[in-house]
Amino acid sequence: MPNDPESTTATIHRWKDGKFHPPSDDKVAVEEPLEIRVRGQNVAVTMRTPGHDDELAAGFLATEGLIKSREDVAEIAHCNKGEMVQLENTLNVFLAPNVEVDLESLTRHVFVSSSCGICGKATIEAVQQGFPPVVSEVRASPEVITGLPVKLREAQATFEQTGGLHAAAMFDARGKLLVLREDVGRHNAVDKVVGFGLLNDVSFAECLLMLSGRASFEIMQKTLAARVPIIAAVSAPSSLAVDFARESGQTLIGFLRGETMNVYSHAQRVGN
Amino acid sequence: MPNDPESTTATIHRWKDGKFHPPSDDKVAVEEPLEIRVRGQNVAVTMRTPGHDDELAAGFLATEGLIKSREDVAEIAHCNKGEMVQLENTLNVFLAPNVEVDLESLTRHVFVSSSCGICGKATIEAVQQGFPPVVSEVRASPEVITGLPVKLREAQATFEQTGGLHAAAMFDARGKLLVLREDVGRHNAVDKVVGFGLLNDVSFAECLLMLSGRASFEIMQKTLAARVPIIAAVSAPSSLAVDFARESGQTLIGFLRGETMNVYSHAQRVGN
Repeated sequence: MPNDPESTTATIHRWKDGKFHPPSDDKVAVEEPLEIRVRGQNVAVTMRTPGHDDELAAGFLATEGLIKSREDVAEIAHCNKGEMVQLENTLNVFLAPNVEVDLESLTRHVFVSSSCGICGKATIEAVQQGFPPVVSEVRASPEVITGLPVKLREAQATFEQTGGLHAAAMFDARGKLLVLREDVGRHNAVDKVVGFGLLNDVSFAECLLMLSGRASFEIMQKTLAARVPIIAAVSAPSSLAVDFARESGQTLIGFLRGETMNVYSHAQRVGN
Repeated sequence: MPNDPESTTATIHRWKDGKFHPPSDDKVAVEEPLEIRVRGQNVAVTMRTPGHDDELAAGFLATEGLIKSREDVAEIAHCNKGEMVQLENTLNVFLAPNVEVDLESLTRHVFVSSSCGICGKATIEAVQQGFPPVVSEVRASPEVITGLPVKLREAQATFEQTGGLHAAAMFDARGKLLVLREDVGRHNAVDKVVGFGLLNDVSFAECLLMLSGRASFEIMQKTLAARVPIIAAVSAPSSLAVDFARESGQTLIGFLRGETMNVYSHAQRVGN
């Protein structure tokens, strides 16, 4: 794995040609949190794909207006010298002494991830302390599930016009659309669906959430809070989304296109 | 527009069949910041598509574990009663008196946008104070630009395997690839490219950044910091990305696919 930190392997159940095939290995993109520290202070946690972390930190600080040239950076180093291995996800940026920074102002403005852990595992545990795993015996048939992308697109009136919106839609286990929301931000579309349920006293505990894009850690976190047992995405999940779903008891489906899908976790909920 | 807050109209220059067509109107998805306040305190600013803001706020607070049911919410209201119109992008959530919240802890964990303004215009002005507009006379030919998606995909070795990564690639004006970076986070891919330039003393002031996905406000903000004059995306830009590019002096290209593209701003840089 050291030669390719960007992807890892997950065992999947692939539905194709009307049946499940024997479990097989598939590559998924790695997602892990990176904490960026400047002068010893945590200024940001971002969910990222490992690799080129020094560039990520330098680019982040440059685009936030903190540094302007190579000379502003004395050193960028992972905190893994003689320390615990999980600190590979913590990066110290040492600035040149003459660089003046307003860290207080920076931390107020930057993207701070809702995941606060240092390594993926710590983060998942931290989150699941708040939300217990999903225990649901609901099942959805492969026919219902493979029919969802078409229903999603048909309902996406705005998408047809702008091509610029992410969609999240909640269906019941028989494939009936309950609510669809769109947003430029994928996480916002999910928040809107969850908020619809809360404001209208609609439980999603027997439902299926369909996403027009990818499934990330953050999205899984939100769906667990809403107690959704089955998550299906048109595109790929991240490694951390897969890990999360396996621990949270949720069924995670990716690459749901045409008559095929990959099931990454708790495949027992897909069946007749 | 009140009937469709999710999209707005932008005048574009469309390149198709080997020539520019007369300027025409095209729909773009609206992106604007929403500030969520709980008990008078700002807990999050998110870049969102207007509409269903109450659901967005409720869903956000539910997925952060702050509220559990409809009864926890007394009222959700925009701050636009008798106040300035820009406060339509500020939402007050009034919780039931018995709901205990640790706002201090919440604001440390939530996604806080790097845009801190209340309305789009204020945000853009705030950002551009830090980074002056791009003034560059560089030009790229339509042939070079339409050739970039293929070059991007060819260079995306990981993408072929996982389908789960966003890509950002910097090209010179003749279409030569300078650096390509991938990440589960679109903004991280851009940060890595910008960081590569900074750490290697490579200026991007005459270059073109190609994105595998969409162009949002946040992405434009980062490319302005790196002084990139031309931004091209395979998919759609948001309304705020278009507004930003027009003010920042950057050329913004969207829907760059096959032999076609839409130019949303400063089209003078596209030509032979």
